[in-house]
Amino acid sequence: MQNRQFRLAKRPFGLPTRDIWEHTTEEVREISEGEILVKINYISLDPAMRGWMNDAKSYIAPVGIGEVMRADTVGEVIASKNPSFAVGEYVNYAFGVQEYGICNGKGVRKIDANVADLPVYLGALGMAGMTAYFGILRVGELKENETVVVSGAAGAVGLIVGQIAKIKNCKVIGIAGGEEKCKMVIEEFGFDACIDYKKTENLKKELHKLAPEGVDVYFDNVGGTILDDVLTQIRKKARIVICGAISQYNNTTPILGPSNYLSLLVNSAKMEGFVIFDFLKDYMEGIMQTATWLKEGKIKTQTHIENGFENFPETLLMLFEGKNKGKLVLKVH
Amino acid sequence: MQNRQFRLAKRPFGLPTRDIWEHTTEEVREISEGEILVKINYISLDPAMRGWMNDAKSYIAPVGIGEVMRADTVGEVIASKNPSFAVGEYVNYAFGVQEYGICNGKGVRKIDANVADLPVYLGALGMAGMTAYFGILRVGELKENETVVVSGAAGAVGLIVGQIAKIKNCKVIGIAGGEEKCKMVIEEFGFDACIDYKKTENLKKELHKLAPEGVDVYFDNVGGTILDDVLTQIRKKARIVICGAISQYNNTTPILGPSNYLSLLVNSAKMEGFVIFDFLKDYMEGIMQTATWLKEGKIKTQTHIENGFENFPETLLMLFEGKNKGKLVLKVH
Repeated sequence: MQNRQFRLAKRPFGLPTRDIWEHTTEEVREISEGEILVKINYISLDPAMRGWMNDAKSYIAPVGIGEVMRADTVGEVIASKNPSFAVGEYVNYAFGVQEYGICNGKGVRKIDANVADLPVYLGALGMAGMTAYFGILRVGELKENETVVVSGAAGAVGLIVGQIAKIKNCKVIGIAGGEEKCKMVIEEFGFDACIDYKKTENLKKELHKLAPEGVDVYFDNVGGTILDDVLTQIRKKARIVICGAISQYNNTTPILGPSNYLSLLVNSAKMEGFVIFDFLKDYMEGIMQTATWLKEGKIKTQTHIENGFENFPETLLMLFEGKNKGKLVLKVH
Repeated sequence: MQNRQFRLAKRPFGLPTRDIWEHTTEEVREISEGEILVKINYISLDPAMRGWMNDAKSYIAPVGIGEVMRADTVGEVIASKNPSFAVGEYVNYAFGVQEYGICNGKGVRKIDANVADLPVYLGALGMAGMTAYFGILRVGELKENETVVVSGAAGAVGLIVGQIAKIKNCKVIGIAGGEEKCKMVIEEFGFDACIDYKKTENLKKELHKLAPEGVDVYFDNVGGTILDDVLTQIRKKARIVICGAISQYNNTTPILGPSNYLSLLVNSAKMEGFVIFDFLKDYMEGIMQTATWLKEGKIKTQTHIENGFENFPETLLMLFEGKNKGKLVLKVH
């Protein structure tokens, strides 16, 4: 049986274009005692993957040149020499960008395809969902009735952040690129407003109109000038959650720092970063609560499925081109 | 009796040079029932004064054009129609840049010239000291044995921050401008090291050499490239206390934002601003503790006294030229 992979052939300068990948094929080997073989159904596409390609000290080791690209996946166990896993069970594990994965079962999460569709375990019930959950509630210290702004509002994390904030009775203002996304965010996901940053001439003014009382929590997925503009609209004791900076990840020039950061001083506010690994010990709490909200219909999911393993490079680029709505996954099997 | 003042004649563009001030003289009026008349001994010069001159929404209203410049002062009650204050008592109050002040006693703090020299009530036992105390302990959440970096190390706030961190058994690295300041900070105030930023070619490397384990708390008084460099050297869960940005206050171009702010993300770190007014209700705790440390010799003070009321404009500029060591005050009487 053949297994195809995408391996990192060289480090990207700017966008991770097709030429940085090596497309390899190899025979799936026999599994050893204790191992499982998984047929991968969906590969998760996440902005964080861009960071893993850089040869820089970070919260996680960079992907090595020649290695299969790191990625979260869900799939089906098709062979098992591990008593904890039976053939036919579905699992979630970071097998990377390939069609089949083999591992010893350590760190593998069993998932129930009857509770939620498989891609949801990469979204609301996976890393994206937990990033939203712990980011807005713990790092953002969200309180009832506050005013929340979230950028990348139509993305996997942003959509959930906004819905959690609505559950907490907050005023929620999204920032997204394009009319269609803004409409979706408001009409389908219950945000109070959504600013189309591509069309808005003065984001500060727009924000001030929508939130004259000021912003209590800003959940930032994008960085750049949007972060800088929101900084001018924060309120006393505001919290700015630095989740990502997708506008800056593919820069070939230095990252744009927030020149309005002294707003933190005059407003006694904080800007705090986090990675989801900080909350591993509380992961189950987040999963259980989110599953309950899903069941109650208080959180809706949005999956953007692309097809064809060979299309991985272009599918990944969709994230940086803002072409996805909700959780972007690549269907493999 | 004549009272001289410095009034804000126009808003500065860049440095607050002499031409922005109006030097006025007026007769000291009779005090009314409930009022006190204070002969001002020392005027406090603080970097924050630069911010008060800008016509911008901030934590405090800007000084109006034509108004006496806001400043903290200590002085002696020389006339009183308020039963709470007797002639001969010393007080601390923000009378502004003038030789005599009149007020109704509200918010006036009585000080004891026998416990500490008068200027100390503008330094360690005043705003500078409390800014250091609450900034490093509350906002910085300083813990024993951490690694602390403080910029503006030879300034009024920086010197106290470093000494408090030493009391907490931390490794303390100062950043200051000039050999003389660095020497003072180490030899007289017990810092473990001090980097002369004017002479250092690569601050990141220098910091890495002195703190290979990474920085737990950075207390920032200066902003600019120093903040950006320290950001590259922080440790997991680091706290960056934004107390000021003296390098940027007189910019005629936009403020330099910290382009390495994503270090907050990968290190799950925070950057938090504050103003001393956030801690008014705990002020007494800070004063009592600092007074105890002073008595025990665990904190030493450093006052830089300039003379002559008419020299206020040039004395203020010394702050921005880095010419002061410790707490800068202007002796009036």
